[in-house]
Amino acid sequence: MAWKRKDLLSMQDLDAAEIGDLLDTAETMKEIAGREIKKVPTLRGKTVVNLFYEASTRTRTSFEIAGKWLSADVINFSASGSSAEKGESLLDTAKNIEAMSPDVVVVRHKASGAPALLARHLNCAVVNAGDGAHEHPTQALLDLLTIREKKGHLDGLHVTIVGDVAHSRVARSNIQGMKTMGMTVTVAGPPTLIPAACENLGVVVSHRLEEAIAHADVIMMLRLQHERMQGGFIPSVREYSRVWGLTVARLQQCRPEVLIMHPGPVNRGVELSPEVADGPYSVILDQVKNGVAVRMAVLYLLTGSKAAA
Amino acid sequence: MAWKRKDLLSMQDLDAAEIGDLLDTAETMKEIAGREIKKVPTLRGKTVVNLFYEASTRTRTSFEIAGKWLSADVINFSASGSSAEKGESLLDTAKNIEAMSPDVVVVRHKASGAPALLARHLNCAVVNAGDGAHEHPTQALLDLLTIREKKGHLDGLHVTIVGDVAHSRVARSNIQGMKTMGMTVTVAGPPTLIPAACENLGVVVSHRLEEAIAHADVIMMLRLQHERMQGGFIPSVREYSRVWGLTVARLQQCRPEVLIMHPGPVNRGVELSPEVADGPYSVILDQVKNGVAVRMAVLYLLTGSKAAA
Amino acid sequence: MAWKRKDLLSMQDLDAAEIGDLLDTAETMKEIAGREIKKVPTLRGKTVVNLFYEASTRTRTSFEIAGKWLSADVINFSASGSSAEKGESLLDTAKNIEAMSPDVVVVRHKASGAPALLARHLNCAVVNAGDGAHEHPTQALLDLLTIREKKGHLDGLHVTIVGDVAHSRVARSNIQGMKTMGMTVTVAGPPTLIPAACENLGVVVSHRLEEAIAHADVIMMLRLQHERMQGGFIPSVREYSRVWGLTVARLQQCRPEVLIMHPGPVNRGVELSPEVADGPYSVILDQVKNGVAVRMAVLYLLTGSKAAA
Repeated sequence: MAWKRKDLLSMQDLDAAEIGDLLDTAETMKEIAGREIKKVPTLRGKTVVNLFYEASTRTRTSFEIAGKWLSADVINFSASGSSAEKGESLLDTAKNIEAMSPDVVVVRHKASGAPALLARHLNCAVVNAGDGAHEHPTQALLDLLTIREKKGHLDGLHVTIVGDVAHSRVARSNIQGMKTMGMTVTVAGPPTLIPAACENLGVVVSHRLEEAIAHADVIMMLRLQHERMQGGFIPSVREYSRVWGLTVARLQQCRPEVLIMHPGPVNRGVELSPEVADGPYSVILDQVKNGVAVRMAVLYLLTGSKAAA
Repeated sequence: MAWKRKDLLSMQDLDAAEIGDLLDTAETMKEIAGREIKKVPTLRGKTVVNLFYEASTRTRTSFEIAGKWLSADVINFSASGSSAEKGESLLDTAKNIEAMSPDVVVVRHKASGAPALLARHLNCAVVNAGDGAHEHPTQALLDLLTIREKKGHLDGLHVTIVGDVAHSRVARSNIQGMKTMGMTVTVAGPPTLIPAACENLGVVVSHRLEEAIAHADVIMMLRLQHERMQGGFIPSVREYSRVWGLTVARLQQCRPEVLIMHPGPVNRGVELSPEVADGPYSVILDQVKNGVAVRMAVLYLLTGSKAAA
Repeated sequence: MAWKRKDLLSMQDLDAAEIGDLLDTAETMKEIAGREIKKVPTLRGKTVVNLFYEASTRTRTSFEIAGKWLSADVINFSASGSSAEKGESLLDTAKNIEAMSPDVVVVRHKASGAPALLARHLNCAVVNAGDGAHEHPTQALLDLLTIREKKGHLDGLHVTIVGDVAHSRVARSNIQGMKTMGMTVTVAGPPTLIPAACENLGVVVSHRLEEAIAHADVIMMLRLQHERMQGGFIPSVREYSRVWGLTVARLQQCRPEVLIMHPGPVNRGVELSPEVADGPYSVILDQVKNGVAVRMAVLYLLTGSKAAA
């Protein structure tokens, strides 16, 4: 195992060997989820704190299950009702939590860079569970695991990411990880939702959905956030859906073995028609299942590396 | 053990042998709650998700304690702050949770039939923890357990249920279970709070409290919900209490060994005078204690049946 | 071990031997927090319920970690979303919780005396985690543990408590405990925030900060609550900070080995300048760390005493 990092902050940090290690470890962990007894003593006596400044029951639950299956003590520390509401700074809150001797702090925060700030100041491991429009590395890892599982490999695959790339930490983390793993990435969406200097990330930009998805091995549809629906970014949800939504008709123009992915929750009838979301090419629920495995791997590697330190 | 069901959705589904099995198993479980060490390894490595769309700390806590005493991993997934708030459908949320491989999903929802919908679509066990005005089967089971404990048997007993029967899932589940167990049920309350075709359920309807409770072995007082207090259903809370509240004076006209039950939380001075709620005939706290035992039995039987499948 | 109490309600109740026992036990517990595997089976099969009527993620988390490291089942029962919101009384809620057979109920409530009320009516152990402006005994215990650790002893030390003594349960619990342990206590603050008959508690009152802290071995700065900032208690936050805030300049007039304490969360720039809060004399994070150890000791002693009873 080549894992040597104290923290998991971004996909940009990781090289191909590290990503490979994480995915291999996640595969081992996934085997546990299939057992009759979903429990191993690996992290017994370790404490994981979920420090969530943005509501996210789904990601929080995924980390909580991951920790519990590894026998860690998992503490949910939500910012609402906490000292954060009394005006305490993120760093003070985090230092107070650290004083309670957790092994891992999993943090979600609306500010890009918040997990990196904590990682610099805390001795325990810090996992970025989503920071602003910056990164969401465990999401990218679970996406890569899903693709590798279904396709047998990553390098050389062509992925098209569709939608609100500009505001998406999921897109940003995936682009970083996919480029590192030798994949070709196209992003597609209305110009208002594609970052200005997007080509600098090494991706191809397309403003026509049909063209963007025609040769893709994987199509990753992004969620259109509600705040974007009325922000002047798109003419209307209906128009967005008509131009950028993935329907059965459009899917028929794609490669025969294409994978349809979505980070959830899906706006049915907006990004994806229900038939596509529930159809044979969709791997959306595989992504969720792999999320637990990836988070088990992350918790395991970060506490192991600390134990060895 | 005759238990063969994947889910526990309603008392209407269950025959007398199944209810008997559940109560016998709950009695065994109750012994654990009396021990110095309240913990058995039975559900080690099993995961129980509490998916509550309506706030209910009490029922949720009862399921959480039940799961933990059996060594299950228990995850609380409250709908507030979750994807449900981002517009995700119940079914999509549940399928996402299922993808995280729980063994049991315990669901409370304001819509009648929501647990049944999930049960059809999920492979894991589903427990109805209250769905709209439909059913709340674990409440009925804990009530039956309490009556059987105190009276030694169920068949032939006369139960009177008083209050807002029309909107009560507690009443509906109890009526179903009690009829199955050979009990006689009278319902009593103002005409606005008694369902129109109530006799179809096999119960006697009474519109006078004194008459309804005179020969009862068990009196079950229902909670008058706050929304009913100002909904035009009753002239006033004071009037309701005067006509339908159980007082010491009224209790003296009842059978000597009558049991007073209430699903909680009690509106003291409305349904029950404080003297009655805390008096020697009240078994309200026995009901709560038996709730944990019943939920342990349900979790045990549902995961066992799945393990065997 | 001399511990014989069912509950921990206040520092006023405890004699020096009991406080000594608690601190000795906490020291033993603290050793666990330093281990690779932070887990002992001591409270396996015991159930701890955190019943918090006031939001306090920090104290709740400290108790939760303490319980989990001792292998107890820990249940968080927050009053919001619970029966309490349906108008149920504190006592009814607590009796319902007790019916679920917890070993310890940890209660925080805005009403002084609420934990004492519960303790009289419940058979299980009750811990006061803060009741109104009355007491917060585990906070005082963690403060005493921190002082004893740093100074080697307690008796004869001089402590100055600065700020809103009138509304502070932290101050009240500390004064009681410190007097019992043979310490000298000075309180200092604007007259509006010092209780009228404060001398009755056996403390010296000072209305000048410089004078109050000059000879102190320990300076405990209290948090200025937001509601006090606009309540007419002080002319302005800026004025308060100028007169009562602890700065580096003021610190230089203190004893060379002085300890700076604060119960948290700190209003940086109000009670404490950031340099002082993070400086070499500050033991604020030691206090937090010791909080977990003290709560482990409390849970251990209370369940042990019950087991023996």
